Amino acid sequence: MATDSRPLAPLEAKLVVQKYGGTSVGDAARIRRAARTVASTLEAGHGVVVVVSAMGDTTDQLIALARQVARDPGERELDHLLSTGEQVSASLMAMALADLGHAAVSLTAGQAGIRTNRLFTRARITDVRPDRIRRELAAGRVPIVAGFQGVTEDEDVTTLGRGGSDTTAVALAAALGAERCEIHTDVEGIYSADPRLVPAAHKLDEISYEEMLEFAQLGARVMHPRAVELGELHGVPILVRSSFSDAPGTLIHRVEQVEVRKHVRGVAHDVDVAKITIVGVPDRPGLAYAIFSPLADAAISVDTIVQNAGLDGKTDLSFTVSRADRVQALELVQKLVPTIGAAGLDHAADLAKVSVIGTGMQSAPGYAAKMFGALAKANVNIEMITTSDIRITCIIDDCQVETALKALHTAFELDQ
Amino acid sequence: MATDSRPLAPLEAKLVVQKYGGTSVGDAARIRRAARTVASTLEAGHGVVVVVSAMGDTTDQLIALARQVARDPGERELDHLLSTGEQVSASLMAMALADLGHAAVSLTAGQAGIRTNRLFTRARITDVRPDRIRRELAAGRVPIVAGFQGVTEDEDVTTLGRGGSDTTAVALAAALGAERCEIHTDVEGIYSADPRLVPAAHKLDEISYEEMLEFAQLGARVMHPRAVELGELHGVPILVRSSFSDAPGTLIHRVEQVEVRKHVRGVAHDVDVAKITIVGVPDRPGLAYAIFSPLADAAISVDTIVQNAGLDGKTDLSFTVSRADRVQALELVQKLVPTIGAAGLDHAADLAKVSVIGTGMQSAPGYAAKMFGALAKANVNIEMITTSDIRITCIIDDCQVETALKALHTAFELDQ
Repeated sequence: MATDSRPLAPLEAKLVVQKYGGTSVGDAARIRRAARTVASTLEAGHGVVVVVSAMGDTTDQLIALARQVARDPGERELDHLLSTGEQVSASLMAMALADLGHAAVSLTAGQAGIRTNRLFTRARITDVRPDRIRRELAAGRVPIVAGFQGVTEDEDVTTLGRGGSDTTAVALAAALGAERCEIHTDVEGIYSADPRLVPAAHKLDEISYEEMLEFAQLGARVMHPRAVELGELHGVPILVRSSFSDAPGTLIHRVEQVEVRKHVRGVAHDVDVAKITIVGVPDRPGLAYAIFSPLADAAISVDTIVQNAGLDGKTDLSFTVSRADRVQALELVQKLVPTIGAAGLDHAADLAKVSVIGTGMQSAPGYAAKMFGALAKANVNIEMITTSDIRITCIIDDCQVETALKALHTAFELDQ
Repeated sequence: MATDSRPLAPLEAKLVVQKYGGTSVGDAARIRRAARTVASTLEAGHGVVVVVSAMGDTTDQLIALARQVARDPGERELDHLLSTGEQVSASLMAMALADLGHAAVSLTAGQAGIRTNRLFTRARITDVRPDRIRRELAAGRVPIVAGFQGVTEDEDVTTLGRGGSDTTAVALAAALGAERCEIHTDVEGIYSADPRLVPAAHKLDEISYEEMLEFAQLGARVMHPRAVELGELHGVPILVRSSFSDAPGTLIHRVEQVEVRKHVRGVAHDVDVAKITIVGVPDRPGLAYAIFSPLADAAISVDTIVQNAGLDGKTDLSFTVSRADRVQALELVQKLVPTIGAAGLDHAADLAKVSVIGTGMQSAPGYAAKMFGALAKANVNIEMITTSDIRITCIIDDCQVETALKALHTAFELDQ
């Protein structure tokens, strides 16, 4: 072992995992900027493990190349190809950090000990064996890990699919017992509503894992639900913050319920909503299975489902899908109309979801009524309603999203 | 193990290693072309292992990025960065080959079992453990290996430096007991002289390792001497051929001496020659060491050295360096002039080497006289002369290279 006069990073107490997304390492200047953030974290006395995404649109360029050489590139080769994008960022980040006087070492997923199953393009992490990372930290070097990837037991390279780099970062933070995982991205944190639509929106200082999951699933693109779930499972505090400012960000963690806490934390929206209604179906056991099983087989993700049985023994059944899946879903359901004895089909592509979210809602009544009242007062018609313990969602006309968000933000006293 | 109805490739007798250089995989269309060549080799009944370089100028682009993020990128990180270039080519080639109906699998150097020492940027192969390659061949898949790289015992990625991908290919051919190693490049083979300067030049059908080494060291850029040496050591026949035509190429192999064989195989030239002469040095033991030791310390490669002791106990000592090294070499030697008691220095940057090469020369006299006669008749003045068993080299004015090459090509009956 080489001797090193640099003080060793205390592995347990003060270790931070920092993940930098694609825009945060989009060019040489941004990589140098991110390296300065890592350096100042080190200089503040923390140990740091860095996880990086591929630079900007590298992944798209590699996919385009693959399509030029083969009609079907094959998932194993696609993963081997795409994984080079994060490896390039990792090496460049290690160089930039060394240039600032901090020894660093880039690691592929294999070197970092991130093991996955063999589901290429959407692999799941099965095990993290961070021996090499611990050795590098002990030797005073900052490990820079290529995100979004892992290796199988056969040493084949996999990619983790959506939310992959965030998942790498949270998994490493859990395996290393890090103090927290920081997601450095192109927004300053989680907001009470989309600030482009609701000027009175404010940044949340903290949020619970459950609330963040609802935000993530309801159109807030900041973090993928998968990484949030992993953080919740292992109790890893996740700080979402901007790479381009020093603003403090939003901490996602286990929030103790306090009586005085505001019960609604924010409003979320998603405009990628299409609705299909099957009209006048004789209600009988197995109906839902008959309808949704062909959709599942076609890999169409069905979101909200509402069924209302009438007095005449007939029912209207509505569900939402993403707009891209509407035509295929309609074709599949159309085939079922004679089989299930339905009167007909109705559909709309121009819908949106607005949701109010907050863990406090589960212990206090009246939120739904307040939400419907606010929307009625703003003249927003509600097409469908669904609820969970900590969320109420209304499907509305997409032209009215901005009006609805502002009305809800005000009604739930979120305006600053 | 998955069952596979494809007949197994016979590993020993008919296996071919094919290496495709940077221009041969320079874009998607060229990768598809190279894949078709691999496919036709497979369809002719051979087993094939493919080795690829990085696409076109990928390596230069990555180096440029590295210089944008750090003043000194560091050799370990540079190797990790650059190795992605060949990994991209390997995946794309595997996709293109699968698209033609031949199962293929890209392999990093680590997966392919290419072990090296830790001399980053110029690593030497210490061991090849082709277990995975053999398994893939047995399963009916074509292994596509990323060239130019290896891994250390610690799983760090290294690059092999100049001639790296050729060296990967020859080393794999040796380890696998392949029938031959094919180098697919942008020329049709080895010529009796540079066809751009000598229109009567002809392609050689075969050439010995020793002759090829002389050609490679004397300015023929087709193959790096290192890969030729490795081929000679392991007795691997190497076929140099074009990726862009079906011409048969040049086979580099162990050539039996036959009396009727032409004794001179070709003429080579190199215009990157500068000469430095130390005039009037008192000749004494240790003189050469005193002069060349500081040059070696400065990593300046000295080529030809000629020393001629006069009757007066003084000697003139001349040597050649590459043009890029001339100024630094002059500065170093200038400092020595008082110490060694030399009368002065002379130098020239506008020189060139012309050589005649052939293993037959060692067993037959008169070649030197014939060479000097041909140059004299063509009015080419000779500045320096050096010889080996199978080569005679003259240093001449670089303006006269074309005249000299044509004269020698004719004199040694190489014209077609």
